[in-house]
Amino acid sequence: MRLEDINSPEDIRGVSVRELEALAAEIRIAILKQVSMHGGHLSPNLGAVELSIALHYVYNTPEDILIWDVGHQAYAHKLLTGRYDRFFTMRQRGGISGFPKRSESIYDPFGVGHASTSLSAGLGFAVASDFAQKDNQIVAVIGDGSMTGGMVFEALNNSRQTKKNFTIVLNDNKMSISPSVGAFSKYLSKLSVKHNRSLEEFGKLLRSIPEHVSSKLKGFIESGWLAFENIVNPGQFFRDLNIRYLGPFDGHNLEELIEAFKEIKELPDICLVHVLTQKGKGYELATKNPTRWHGSDPFHIEDGSIVVEKPQPTLTSIFGKTLLILAKQNKKIIGISAAMLDGCGLGILKEDPDTADRVFDVGIAEEHAVTFAAGLACEGFTPVVAIYSSFLQRAYDQIIHDVALQNLPVVFILDRAGLVGSDGPTHHGAFDLSYLRTIPNMVIMAPSDENEMRNMIYTATQYKHGPTAVRYPKAVTFTNDIRTEFSELPVGKFRTVSEGSKVLLIGVGFMLAKCLDTAGVLEKKGIKPTIIDARFVKPLDVGSYKELFKKHNLVVTVEDNTIAGGFGSAIAEILSEMKNPPRLLRLGLPDDFVEQGEIEELRESLGLSGNGISSKILEILK
Amino acid sequence: MRLEDINSPEDIRGVSVRELEALAAEIRIAILKQVSMHGGHLSPNLGAVELSIALHYVYNTPEDILIWDVGHQAYAHKLLTGRYDRFFTMRQRGGISGFPKRSESIYDPFGVGHASTSLSAGLGFAVASDFAQKDNQIVAVIGDGSMTGGMVFEALNNSRQTKKNFTIVLNDNKMSISPSVGAFSKYLSKLSVKHNRSLEEFGKLLRSIPEHVSSKLKGFIESGWLAFENIVNPGQFFRDLNIRYLGPFDGHNLEELIEAFKEIKELPDICLVHVLTQKGKGYELATKNPTRWHGSDPFHIEDGSIVVEKPQPTLTSIFGKTLLILAKQNKKIIGISAAMLDGCGLGILKEDPDTADRVFDVGIAEEHAVTFAAGLACEGFTPVVAIYSSFLQRAYDQIIHDVALQNLPVVFILDRAGLVGSDGPTHHGAFDLSYLRTIPNMVIMAPSDENEMRNMIYTATQYKHGPTAVRYPKAVTFTNDIRTEFSELPVGKFRTVSEGSKVLLIGVGFMLAKCLDTAGVLEKKGIKPTIIDARFVKPLDVGSYKELFKKHNLVVTVEDNTIAGGFGSAIAEILSEMKNPPRLLRLGLPDDFVEQGEIEELRESLGLSGNGISSKILEILK
Repeated sequence: MRLEDINSPEDIRGVSVRELEALAAEIRIAILKQVSMHGGHLSPNLGAVELSIALHYVYNTPEDILIWDVGHQAYAHKLLTGRYDRFFTMRQRGGISGFPKRSESIYDPFGVGHASTSLSAGLGFAVASDFAQKDNQIVAVIGDGSMTGGMVFEALNNSRQTKKNFTIVLNDNKMSISPSVGAFSKYLSKLSVKHNRSLEEFGKLLRSIPEHVSSKLKGFIESGWLAFENIVNPGQFFRDLNIRYLGPFDGHNLEELIEAFKEIKELPDICLVHVLTQKGKGYELATKNPTRWHGSDPFHIEDGSIVVEKPQPTLTSIFGKTLLILAKQNKKIIGISAAMLDGCGLGILKEDPDTADRVFDVGIAEEHAVTFAAGLACEGFTPVVAIYSSFLQRAYDQIIHDVALQNLPVVFILDRAGLVGSDGPTHHGAFDLSYLRTIPNMVIMAPSDENEMRNMIYTATQYKHGPTAVRYPKAVTFTNDIRTEFSELPVGKFRTVSEGSKVLLIGVGFMLAKCLDTAGVLEKKGIKPTIIDARFVKPLDVGSYKELFKKHNLVVTVEDNTIAGGFGSAIAEILSEMKNPPRLLRLGLPDDFVEQGEIEELRESLGLSGNGISSKILEILK
Repeated sequence: MRLEDINSPEDIRGVSVRELEALAAEIRIAILKQVSMHGGHLSPNLGAVELSIALHYVYNTPEDILIWDVGHQAYAHKLLTGRYDRFFTMRQRGGISGFPKRSESIYDPFGVGHASTSLSAGLGFAVASDFAQKDNQIVAVIGDGSMTGGMVFEALNNSRQTKKNFTIVLNDNKMSISPSVGAFSKYLSKLSVKHNRSLEEFGKLLRSIPEHVSSKLKGFIESGWLAFENIVNPGQFFRDLNIRYLGPFDGHNLEELIEAFKEIKELPDICLVHVLTQKGKGYELATKNPTRWHGSDPFHIEDGSIVVEKPQPTLTSIFGKTLLILAKQNKKIIGISAAMLDGCGLGILKEDPDTADRVFDVGIAEEHAVTFAAGLACEGFTPVVAIYSSFLQRAYDQIIHDVALQNLPVVFILDRAGLVGSDGPTHHGAFDLSYLRTIPNMVIMAPSDENEMRNMIYTATQYKHGPTAVRYPKAVTFTNDIRTEFSELPVGKFRTVSEGSKVLLIGVGFMLAKCLDTAGVLEKKGIKPTIIDARFVKPLDVGSYKELFKKHNLVVTVEDNTIAGGFGSAIAEILSEMKNPPRLLRLGLPDDFVEQGEIEELRESLGLSGNGISSKILEILK
């Protein structure tokens, strides 16, 4: 049996364990090949190969429903479900997704990307199956990292709403992207240590008590059986929630996994199956440093070296370096992230003895992160909450209710705003300007270059009148020439980049570069536009904007946020109050979900390039 | 000691338990008086009287930080912290809030209104106190209902991030607004039964085993001590999270509570103190029916009869009745709510044998509710998720990532949209049109009367192309004359109410009534405006709107949503694309948090009345 011949999981059912083990090796090679060529998630996928095989072997997918949490561990699943031929198009424009996706395969019943959703979705499928009186099984696979997200607990609390034997597979590798944090992770570690005392041994001991010694004692011990079971076979946490705990099982032992799932399939309970896996399994470099190899750019398999080293530094690292400087000066600054210290650039603060104790990784717990920050701000601290734009959606109510309503000076740093590239629609930060702009008291900034970004972070940490947000894309910077002095920006004021006439180009954040490109094209046609760096999305200096609008015939806003309710809408609001306003051209992400692809490639396709923008302008001016 | 003489908690410290008991009785009378006169939360407040006294007696507030979750149980706390003189202004315009509020008192360190935030905020205070090397105590009081919200678990998971003896008081009354649901609630019930077997008794038994019987057994049992302790003194769930469980204590026994807190204050651990209280304690009617008496309109204390019976029916009940009819016809319809079955009108489906099993109360778990609905929709069901507008903010990411991105036909019912009245800024549904409008694939409807509302609910349950939302205010209806036939509304199309010239009034939802009032005023001045019922906030029939705009000089949008990014902005977006557009006047809630007060009174003060709107129009036309 060769991997390329597998058209569906049906092809692996009934095959010998020996052959499946060979298949696992083939799958690992395919995953390594794909990620080394095109980049993607590596170590979580290498860790879930046997688990994927065992689940598809035992369960009757797609009739049985298999849901992956986050989905960055589903490459083997994709290979086993008829996508080998498209596997090497993964994460590229027009290719298959790096995550399970409903529109892609009947084996992907629920699309994912964000963490901690699989149990809730799985319960939806389970209850649907109850009503339809289907005889299928529902299996949700969740990592220990995702277990730190509160909605998992909400789902566990509701798990008895199905009559089915809903199965939760806890894929425990001790990591989310970074090592898992918190009390729950420690609890899982305790569970992972198989106790020497087995149930059998205890039974023997129990029988060895002479009847005459104390029948009361014996009764007492028997009634305490459940409690003892907690030592012999722990997992009381889950049993307290009426969930049967089973495990831990070796997640790389196919025979053990298959036997276990066969038995579990017959159990009438809601089961939590604890499976221990190793991130990066089978690729030594990745097992040694699973965080580095969680996701990777294209690399040489032999030595792990990156094929094309990215130009440095990234905006992420500039944020980290900037905050480190500020935090050393200002002991009130506290960094907070949700399972992404390094991803957000806060790792550098964790490594510096001056600031290490002022950085908190709360796990995949955006809601807690924001309200925790609110509490700190109440006591005069300056919490800096760094979370990817699309993940901050998780804490929307907390931003409104706990921070903005109390007008607390919490600083929000939104990395990965705008298009993120090959992670696709689940990860694009396409909505932040719209969802933040609607919140009272919020100051929203978008830097157009790295020095402005540093000044915005400084301005945000200095601002004491309420919450602030600085949002910027996943990008490398243009320059290493970072100035060290900081200057506070006047809140709400835009910056005039160059003065022209007729056409007014307003760039939001790094989209200013597209305005400059556009001006280049227009100037060849004899049009010299005025160019503005918006800097602020909220508040806006309405008076100055109106003055500027009066002098132009066409206003063009360029942002990497949805055009529904974003910066362009804020400008439309201002224009709508004017008599004889100039025409407005609002450019940004469409009011639709944008697919995956290289960021520049996507921008080009959406018309967000110098050529695209200028041709729209020329069309209107005609 | 009389209640009116208490200026701060200092006044009750050192007083005898007998006197405190008398004080508790006085507080209950004050609470009853206030709620019977002005309405408000009754049974949760009556249940927390002794707890409030004991906490302020033992802890050194405000240096010690006391945070209430939700805050609808904090009336006694307000009376004990110098607000007796303003107590009877509560929940009225200009009066004190019905919830703890930072701007109101130094004894309210953290404002609340939504559930499940107190632990996260408390940890923020605790960590701040660590850094400031303060010696204060941090106490967060949380109800068992609030424990169903996932962010509590996120906070518990992070509780070891403070070095302080952070104290969590679990105020367990078996209820949120409705009885608490889920596995966790059942677990707490088990904890609440004090076991007959005491530690002492077990110790005696252990000592009674003759040494010669089995030293191995004895060692084994001793090592099992912790497990046994779980039976004798349960709470393993919390211990698994490294939190010390203490209790349960009688929440109405002041002596027991005070002794307990005195001891707990000295413990170096993160403690969860389980306190059993009775909702409505001291007012027999409320103890008998705590859900009815969770909150109340003004009533006669003697017999519980309402002073002024509200006209019937409410929009909430119309939704319930409508969905009941539809769900009887369509077995695919499933109702879901988050701890508010009755509050959202779904109770009626729970009572009907035809639909009872198709209604799910998931607890205060909005995130789970939405993704659970997404799972059901994947399998061809039509989930109807009914959640108050301001609470749905909790599930923003799930609406985007799990529903809209997969274009699943989930129906969202947003009750309490717009201004809610005396609950104030935490509860106003001021942002939904803005935050939903930015989401691709979303269809948003706002009915202007009860029949349109029924048709919109029908249209939503018929719509199979993606998610829909129907949002409406907390309101009684104008008529009992509800037509029974349903008709599907054309998606995106507005309705012309009356044709006029020059001025175009567009009303969103029930704000159409204000447009009619405005027209009445304008007609007296010789202006006959065109009046439009928007019906849809997304999508919009842009072509037809543009036609209409061309015929008018002034467009006026009236909505009960923030003007930042709402319906008016959508109209501004359309106008900005036109040549020589008419002037736009966007009216709605200000880009600020609106205080408490009677709904009509607040609207009046914000200029959202016939007189207010018409005077603004006349000003512009001048």
